[in-house]
Amino acid sequence: MSRPTCISLTTDYGLADGFVAACHGVLARLAPAARVIDVTHLVPPADVRRGAVVLAQTVPYLPEGVHVAVVDPGVGTARRAIGLATPNGLLVGPDNGLLLDAAAALGGITAAVELTNPTWLAPAVSRTFHGRDVFAPVAARLALGAPLAEAGPALDPATLVRLPAPVLHRTADGFAAEVLTVDHFGNVQLAAPADLLDGLPDRVRVTGRADRPRQLGAPDAAPLRQPQLGASDAAPRPEAVAEAVTGALAMRGRTFADAPVGELVVYPDSAGLLAVAVNTGRAVDRLGVRPGDVVTVTRG
Amino acid sequence: MSRPTCISLTTDYGLADGFVAACHGVLARLAPAARVIDVTHLVPPADVRRGAVVLAQTVPYLPEGVHVAVVDPGVGTARRAIGLATPNGLLVGPDNGLLLDAAAALGGITAAVELTNPTWLAPAVSRTFHGRDVFAPVAARLALGAPLAEAGPALDPATLVRLPAPVLHRTADGFAAEVLTVDHFGNVQLAAPADLLDGLPDRVRVTGRADRPRQLGAPDAAPLRQPQLGASDAAPRPEAVAEAVTGALAMRGRTFADAPVGELVVYPDSAGLLAVAVNTGRAVDRLGVRPGDVVTVTRG
Amino acid sequence: MSRPTCISLTTDYGLADGFVAACHGVLARLAPAARVIDVTHLVPPADVRRGAVVLAQTVPYLPEGVHVAVVDPGVGTARRAIGLATPNGLLVGPDNGLLLDAAAALGGITAAVELTNPTWLAPAVSRTFHGRDVFAPVAARLALGAPLAEAGPALDPATLVRLPAPVLHRTADGFAAEVLTVDHFGNVQLAAPADLLDGLPDRVRVTGRADRPRQLGAPDAAPLRQPQLGASDAAPRPEAVAEAVTGALAMRGRTFADAPVGELVVYPDSAGLLAVAVNTGRAVDRLGVRPGDVVTVTRG
Repeated sequence: MSRPTCISLTTDYGLADGFVAACHGVLARLAPAARVIDVTHLVPPADVRRGAVVLAQTVPYLPEGVHVAVVDPGVGTARRAIGLATPNGLLVGPDNGLLLDAAAALGGITAAVELTNPTWLAPAVSRTFHGRDVFAPVAARLALGAPLAEAGPALDPATLVRLPAPVLHRTADGFAAEVLTVDHFGNVQLAAPADLLDGLPDRVRVTGRADRPRQLGAPDAAPLRQPQLGASDAAPRPEAVAEAVTGALAMRGRTFADAPVGELVVYPDSAGLLAVAVNTGRAVDRLGVRPGDVVTVTRG
Repeated sequence: MSRPTCISLTTDYGLADGFVAACHGVLARLAPAARVIDVTHLVPPADVRRGAVVLAQTVPYLPEGVHVAVVDPGVGTARRAIGLATPNGLLVGPDNGLLLDAAAALGGITAAVELTNPTWLAPAVSRTFHGRDVFAPVAARLALGAPLAEAGPALDPATLVRLPAPVLHRTADGFAAEVLTVDHFGNVQLAAPADLLDGLPDRVRVTGRADRPRQLGAPDAAPLRQPQLGASDAAPRPEAVAEAVTGALAMRGRTFADAPVGELVVYPDSAGLLAVAVNTGRAVDRLGVRPGDVVTVTRG
Repeated sequence: MSRPTCISLTTDYGLADGFVAACHGVLARLAPAARVIDVTHLVPPADVRRGAVVLAQTVPYLPEGVHVAVVDPGVGTARRAIGLATPNGLLVGPDNGLLLDAAAALGGITAAVELTNPTWLAPAVSRTFHGRDVFAPVAARLALGAPLAEAGPALDPATLVRLPAPVLHRTADGFAAEVLTVDHFGNVQLAAPADLLDGLPDRVRVTGRADRPRQLGAPDAAPLRQPQLGASDAAPRPEAVAEAVTGALAMRGRTFADAPVGELVVYPDSAGLLAVAVNTGRAVDRLGVRPGDVVTVTRG
């Protein structure tokens, strides 16, 4: 790999404290020539899946470099701190599944190490802020061109912690797919490649929560899947409850405005996955779903 | 224009997804020497007016360069993607009125083009993410010094989509002006130049919603005018309801503290327009107004 | 001091307006080679204490340079604009106590000036936006190497406005300490050094609001202490009310996961102070406290 000079940061640190700036400061001190790009710091606290999804869908557009991700409820415990090499960049973060989708997006893991070399870390490593004391110092050294192998002993990639694969399967008249994430606009991204729509008609039926019936409108008991900033945390509207049970008709389209205003559209999104939107509205509120729910898309 | 090396970004993408970082990544890959300044990414989704106002009031303080703005509910439709030249910088974004106030603030449009040159765009342009695939690549090339005329065919500026001009007119005993925007502190900026206060006494009466009476406290049916982050979306307080009907007395002043704590002040704000504030409080809550409402300022 | 080339920004400007970008623009125009690091712009409006705490705990990790902080409810009044020199960097902002903890963290004040040199300021200084018109221009000149003494006349540091010291005292069976701040994760940081736990058992009792009893669940009449973005503003849960009165048992630990899931832990945080957390939860909601409240930690 050519010497990387770009470092990206993806965390659940929020923007109200000085945590992100402390990481920037460590990077600026150690690798003053490196450009730092913030992917997001608004991953919901401890939502490793959300962090993994955002990182994986963003890294293909970043310059080759070192990508630091920290969504790390196990900080300070025995969970490993890892560095991964890929054909198109390096990844640094906790061994909890956060980095693996991004590694795949960058071409797959070619080497993995555990970040244990004390000379690469802060002189005093806190037990609760490894972004500042472990991951940023390591990323800075990698950005300066130090070899990953010096950061610590090699790991067998097969031992890395993995998140469960999202639900995705064909059904008699369409498919069922897990809601991978919901963006700022309320668009609902499914864990489904675009070609799953092949063979379905121009109007399809989208049904939320089909695999996992429960009281609609009740908040999940899911503290680790907090809604993202800007996403609605309110109970679904009454029509959404009905639609989540019986499904709602949606146009197949290529952009939001391919459906009439206020109508649902299923389209291949900018990450290459199928998503559900409402033209000038918020599909997440219409479908009453959250990440991890399963949506079916079937013949209308 | 001298070769611009600063690129600014103004969007409604929010900060929780990777959208902004993908734009930064495209810029860093294509124009690694350009400095990128984020104006804001918290324009309420699809609120073109809000984006236009923030951009226009910020560009005079940015280095000369390329200003990218994307508040683009019509992305992927026939709406044009445009580039504008001014005596003090370039503007890139959708043809929906977003860029025109900023163009005026930079000295007026000297050339306009439609961004259709495929060699300037991403190899595969998505239908829903033109910030990444159209506007960022174009901005990077402009920042590198490529001439705007090569980005696509010239447009007649008279054909550009424009937002309606905000309400502003003198009345028998003062003036009526549209609420242009509300800032993070709850200060209410009017579409009124500072000299409209000339001839009015030291205490004036500020009345909200005079031109457009309606049930106070009821949320507007205005999906494209969502409240900004940090702005209160709650119903106005009872005293605000009364004040919005009968008006509230306000001091004329030059800064917040020219009024007693908790009192209204009308002052020329840092953008040179008249604004209403409450010393250590939030005028927007006191007046019960939103952008687009009309406020009257009259002899007390 | 060697020539500083890093400028940090800490404000209560929020991220939805163009205020932060205008400051970045002024810095980029005047000191284009300086690196700018945003500490945070989400200090609650006018919460000088919160700004002071975040800044002081972040500056030790930033490169030596110029630190600009603007939480400034008195902007445009007779309050002074000041610049401070320390052995490890410069500080610029209003004279309202915002900068002094950071100055101490950087080694103490070695010189202080009032920023009155008009040639250092914007040509026209607004009355309400000194970040753009006073503090950013001054910071840019300092970053370029201009001596602080040229920014204005020397001040006696003893005349600087100071915030009251936070409550901290030993009790018969432990200690009482003010809640200094609450972070994005709901962790409650106390104004207490880590060694105050010495001599206490492995399980301690944490009691909120002991010194200042009041109706639990009622919002404070504290407009200048608004909750930070991401912090819960809801009324404490019933169990939190009980715990705030009688106290809750907490483990002593070194990281969140040293307590069972859902249990309280008292630990030395990454700033070297004692903090209270809940493993995979939010201590602030459990304790029902806010910054400024006093918490007691006693033998269980």
